[in-house]
Amino acid sequence: IMSKGTVVLAYSGGLDTSCILVWLKEQGYDVITYLANIGQDEDFEAAQKKAESLGAKKVFIEDLRAEFVEDFIWPAVQANAVYEDRYLLGTAVARPCIARRQVEIARREGAHFVSHGATGKGNDQIRFELTCYALYPEVKIIAPWRIPEFYNRFRGRTDLMEYAQSRAPADLYLMTKNPEDSPSVPDVLEIEFKNGVPVKVTNVKDSKVTSSPLDIFSYLNDIGGKHGVGRIDIVENRFIGMKSRGIYETPGGTILLKAHLDIETFTMDKEVRRIKQGLGIKFSELVYNGFWDSPECDFVRHCITKSQENVEGKVQLSVFKGQVYILGRDSPTSLYNEELVSMDVQGDYDPCDASGFIRINAVRLREHHRLQGLSSTKQ
Amino acid sequence: IMSKGTVVLAYSGGLDTSCILVWLKEQGYDVITYLANIGQDEDFEAAQKKAESLGAKKVFIEDLRAEFVEDFIWPAVQANAVYEDRYLLGTAVARPCIARRQVEIARREGAHFVSHGATGKGNDQIRFELTCYALYPEVKIIAPWRIPEFYNRFRGRTDLMEYAQSRAPADLYLMTKNPEDSPSVPDVLEIEFKNGVPVKVTNVKDSKVTSSPLDIFSYLNDIGGKHGVGRIDIVENRFIGMKSRGIYETPGGTILLKAHLDIETFTMDKEVRRIKQGLGIKFSELVYNGFWDSPECDFVRHCITKSQENVEGKVQLSVFKGQVYILGRDSPTSLYNEELVSMDVQGDYDPCDASGFIRINAVRLREHHRLQGLSSTKQ
Amino acid sequence: IMSKGTVVLAYSGGLDTSCILVWLKEQGYDVITYLANIGQDEDFEAAQKKAESLGAKKVFIEDLRAEFVEDFIWPAVQANAVYEDRYLLGTAVARPCIARRQVEIARREGAHFVSHGATGKGNDQIRFELTCYALYPEVKIIAPWRIPEFYNRFRGRTDLMEYAQSRAPADLYLMTKNPEDSPSVPDVLEIEFKNGVPVKVTNVKDSKVTSSPLDIFSYLNDIGGKHGVGRIDIVENRFIGMKSRGIYETPGGTILLKAHLDIETFTMDKEVRRIKQGLGIKFSELVYNGFWDSPECDFVRHCITKSQENVEGKVQLSVFKGQVYILGRDSPTSLYNEELVSMDVQGDYDPCDASGFIRINAVRLREHHRLQGLSSTKQ
Amino acid sequence: IMSKGTVVLAYSGGLDTSCILVWLKEQGYDVITYLANIGQDEDFEAAQKKAESLGAKKVFIEDLRAEFVEDFIWPAVQANAVYEDRYLLGTAVARPCIARRQVEIARREGAHFVSHGATGKGNDQIRFELTCYALYPEVKIIAPWRIPEFYNRFRGRTDLMEYAQSRAPADLYLMTKNPEDSPSVPDVLEIEFKNGVPVKVTNVKDSKVTSSPLDIFSYLNDIGGKHGVGRIDIVENRFIGMKSRGIYETPGGTILLKAHLDIETFTMDKEVRRIKQGLGIKFSELVYNGFWDSPECDFVRHCITKSQENVEGKVQLSVFKGQVYILGRDSPTSLYNEELVSMDVQGDYDPCDASGFIRINAVRLREHHRLQGLSSTKQ
Repeated sequence: IMSKGTVVLAYSGGLDTSCILVWLKEQGYDVITYLANIGQDEDFEAAQKKAESLGAKKVFIEDLRAEFVEDFIWPAVQANAVYEDRYLLGTAVARPCIARRQVEIARREGAHFVSHGATGKGNDQIRFELTCYALYPEVKIIAPWRIPEFYNRFRGRTDLMEYAQSRAPADLYLMTKNPEDSPSVPDVLEIEFKNGVPVKVTNVKDSKVTSSPLDIFSYLNDIGGKHGVGRIDIVENRFIGMKSRGIYETPGGTILLKAHLDIETFTMDKEVRRIKQGLGIKFSELVYNGFWDSPECDFVRHCITKSQENVEGKVQLSVFKGQVYILGRDSPTSLYNEELVSMDVQGDYDPCDASGFIRINAVRLREHHRLQGLSSTKQ
Repeated sequence: IMSKGTVVLAYSGGLDTSCILVWLKEQGYDVITYLANIGQDEDFEAAQKKAESLGAKKVFIEDLRAEFVEDFIWPAVQANAVYEDRYLLGTAVARPCIARRQVEIARREGAHFVSHGATGKGNDQIRFELTCYALYPEVKIIAPWRIPEFYNRFRGRTDLMEYAQSRAPADLYLMTKNPEDSPSVPDVLEIEFKNGVPVKVTNVKDSKVTSSPLDIFSYLNDIGGKHGVGRIDIVENRFIGMKSRGIYETPGGTILLKAHLDIETFTMDKEVRRIKQGLGIKFSELVYNGFWDSPECDFVRHCITKSQENVEGKVQLSVFKGQVYILGRDSPTSLYNEELVSMDVQGDYDPCDASGFIRINAVRLREHHRLQGLSSTKQ
Repeated sequence: IMSKGTVVLAYSGGLDTSCILVWLKEQGYDVITYLANIGQDEDFEAAQKKAESLGAKKVFIEDLRAEFVEDFIWPAVQANAVYEDRYLLGTAVARPCIARRQVEIARREGAHFVSHGATGKGNDQIRFELTCYALYPEVKIIAPWRIPEFYNRFRGRTDLMEYAQSRAPADLYLMTKNPEDSPSVPDVLEIEFKNGVPVKVTNVKDSKVTSSPLDIFSYLNDIGGKHGVGRIDIVENRFIGMKSRGIYETPGGTILLKAHLDIETFTMDKEVRRIKQGLGIKFSELVYNGFWDSPECDFVRHCITKSQENVEGKVQLSVFKGQVYILGRDSPTSLYNEELVSMDVQGDYDPCDASGFIRINAVRLREHHRLQGLSSTKQ
Repeated sequence: IMSKGTVVLAYSGGLDTSCILVWLKEQGYDVITYLANIGQDEDFEAAQKKAESLGAKKVFIEDLRAEFVEDFIWPAVQANAVYEDRYLLGTAVARPCIARRQVEIARREGAHFVSHGATGKGNDQIRFELTCYALYPEVKIIAPWRIPEFYNRFRGRTDLMEYAQSRAPADLYLMTKNPEDSPSVPDVLEIEFKNGVPVKVTNVKDSKVTSSPLDIFSYLNDIGGKHGVGRIDIVENRFIGMKSRGIYETPGGTILLKAHLDIETFTMDKEVRRIKQGLGIKFSELVYNGFWDSPECDFVRHCITKSQENVEGKVQLSVFKGQVYILGRDSPTSLYNEELVSMDVQGDYDPCDASGFIRINAVRLREHHRLQGLSSTKQ
């Protein structure tokens, strides 16, 4: 039999993508499986053996952990990325990272097809595929969960997620402890930032220090997880226009968001911050919707990075029972001027100026009142 | 001696405004003191006696609690009002409420002057005065902390706030318990919303129900306070362009923000939500800066209120150790469609459509890639 | 033969939709043709006869001119709707108007299908269909130009538009004279607005007055057309992500845009205007992309309408050689205060206040400079 | 007599600033006059002599024309800078340019004071002073038109502008011909852009070529002026909250705005353009309000410059009777793909994808309709 060509399949080692692997072979494709290690809890060796035993022509296990943190999570930290005021975009940020390597493998191996196990109603299919099309425009994508012959045959399966959702959400969390069972003594951390990204974390109690991006992120996930930080149960709006319920946990990301917000406001000009806040919201929408690899996301990332040049300094915080409390901050580039703001020191600031400031701001309001008076008189 | 006229002084009963009262009389004014009860912990009777003993011509103690909640806090809840991603605007919302009544008294009493004890570097002076000018354009404002003869004489005082700030922030909190000392058993609440504002709160454990706006807000302050919810230590950007440190506690407001965000996303169309989010950020800036009584804030409030027409339903949440956890939500106007989003039910949704959706979204990205290829070829 | 059901076809009388009519019958459908009169130059009687002769079961010719102006063009005028800074959205606004009636007919006639002649790469297919789905969610849409059996058969046709585009753009304009050939004497108009829409137009020279919406719009099209106003040759970004070239003429719309911008700025508070400007840009994108009938467009229209409550008064303008020149404006609700702004009258305004205003605005800038000085010292 | 110190006065050669020069000397200051040449029609030699004869200690005439175009106008062109949809910011852009040099002179000459002749109700005072404070934070500013002793004495003067405004606006224009009197034959230009700024202008008829920034801008002012391009009569909102009437002419700026908009849309990704459009509006507000030298304006300029990297190519346009008509454009970096957009070539684009795209976009709209149906059923 002639092969229809080679497919690089984003493989998870689970039931779903194993079915897809077998089905793709049935359809006449040569299948290369690719499993990205972005820090998830997985038996990679077992997955490799499974893929081989199911007939994968080649098996790639790729350790993307460091580049995931540096190239994808760090920009999200700089952006204070939050979708719809609550979701910290964990999965949304992982997809382009995984797809980027998948495309690299496909090009290198001369594969004209890529495939994935994302379902036909979700966001992940879009995130995967937009990155694939953006970086490898001629690629053909095989999305079995959108192909009737596939999904009509496999739909009956007990889907892991569906199953999970029928259980109590509390059982779903993998990384975070239930805050009710978490330690009754806080951990106190000092996080040092440079250019808006963490460069060092010190545990004030045991003096433990971490300093590489991957170590920092892993450590914050551990500490956050231990104290039950970053659990949310939300309804969100998918890109395709459905509302769906999501249960997420982002322990390290939550600590970083709080710390970064703090050092950013401390060091960034007020009006720059306001503009940058709008760009951060835009960034979050783009990433959620799968447009990491787009000209507009490149542009926004560039602008946000520019805004972070002076975002440096240390934030002290305590992590306790699901919460992160900022204790203080310190920075060589701070725009906070204790003397200027003090009520006892007048310095260069003349309080009389405030009268003029207020009165000028009131010009418009008083005119508006005057006009309203006229309008009501007329009637 | 001829009186220079009558001043209505926003009086707190404290040292500062007592000094101002005496000083205004010295300057030749008749002084009416006005003390607004917006729910703060205050001995109003003692304050009244003190004002009288210091020579106030009249003393008004005004109970604004209900209108503060309904006319000022509820719109902030509808807006998800947060300044600079963190500050819930407690004080900022109180100022126009207090000033509005002050202006009413001044007009009624024929007073041409109003006065207050806000300092010359802060936001509160602006919030007070913009409302006064907006509602009573001809009023004259006496702001002693901006008048050299006054502040040069009184500057030496041990300012309460300054004093407080030199102590550990933990001692500053009045309404909230330290989460470390808070109960180790959560309270579970069900908050019912209608038109985006809470109309009923039920404590699931003891079945206690509150339903008037003032009762609801007080109760949520109690529950939130008991569990240490809503404490923040931030550096913020004042309207006048200084950064200042603020220690705030908004226990009830924090619970409401989380609950409202949840029911809003559950019931509001995705794209309406996005536009409304932008208006909410605008609203927060306006309120922080003192523009509650402005045409633009009226306009934004109108739009936000319109957006809340379908925001109704119940949110279940637990309050524990400084955190608020959403447990679930339920609404007759929800746009969440379990069947539509289910992975097992196809219904009217055709997964193949997603392929077209993604490919059309990729048209632009692929073109961009093509052009970049051309550019690099040229060089 | 059993009919497959009834289709309501948006019929133009031209070659394209005539082909579609015949093809739909071939496919086994009963076809009702529907031709909307939105003011285009068309022989409606001839079109009716043609449709009947080609086998249409029923033929509807609907005069939508008045509702097109009042329900669709007037909101666009209130919004100052312009897409990508240049395109005045003529066609984009017509589509939902046409589709709305089409859906009404389909429901009334018990038709489960609608069809149109829009091509598969354009915006109009989207505008048509989103309105159909929004107002008649169960409808089935037949878009022949996206169906291979159809377009492979008919693709070879000399497409009218394509043909047109190969000719000089100057020949494309139907409503507007070439400015080089237009009169060398201006027309001077006075347009009166109420609630942000024109209620009366007076030609100052010949005293001709028009006052119904349809008459006003037609008259402005005539005057604008006579003077060559509103021609543009642009490249625009379609919703589907392609750039395309467009040659448009909107003579009446251009006059109204200029006049409305003028009376709006004259009567609307500065900050309300700024917020409304953002909503207008949003509105334009939504309409361009086909989302006229969406919750977010309803919301934005509501907000914009609210903003227009005081937008009333008269604008004088001259129309000449492709341009519209504003000559003056007059309004009972104007916020323009000649005395306040005069350099010779001081009035209630104290110029000293401006010093304070400026100095407070400079606080932040001076601090920024101070910090930059420190930074450079460090290196 | 001891001098109070040295003032650098922004001198215009006119009556106003001559009065200020004399008055400053009366007050005991040494006065250095500084006259910036930014291309205005002025007898600089006469002004120099006048200043000397009035007792200026030193007289600086500075030719800022080239830096005005390159450092100030070009960024405004890149931004498509327009304030309140109509005003092209001519004066607003000139002020920081003039003030920047004034501060340099003050620092170099050891002057602690700067002064200007801008009035106390206008924008220019703010634009001047914010730049001065930003670049020279310790400077003292003397603004005579805000000092009662000065303005009470000089208020009676026949102010040039006031006088002018009482005459017909048509007489006010200095650079532009009345379109009614302008040539009846168009000029046709080709403007070549690189990085979003013009690098070459060719007059197609006489083959005249200009290529330095200053030459290009002067030439476009000439051509635009000759054809009466860029006249506006508007009411605008000043920063201080008053509405004022302005009569402006920006012939060269108007040509550049139209040409730049065209080449930008031709070469810039759609979504980048949308984000950049928002930044351009922000930029315009900042510049209008006098914040050219601010961290946020630096930031926005940086982002806008970044967006212009691919904005290159040629725009052909005709200038005629007050209008600019785009005739065509051409670019090596265009994202316009004639084949992709063609109705006759299918290429890689599958029209069926559009069906999926539309249906997915309709998911949300159909759900919304469903919910509305339920709501109305309930009642």
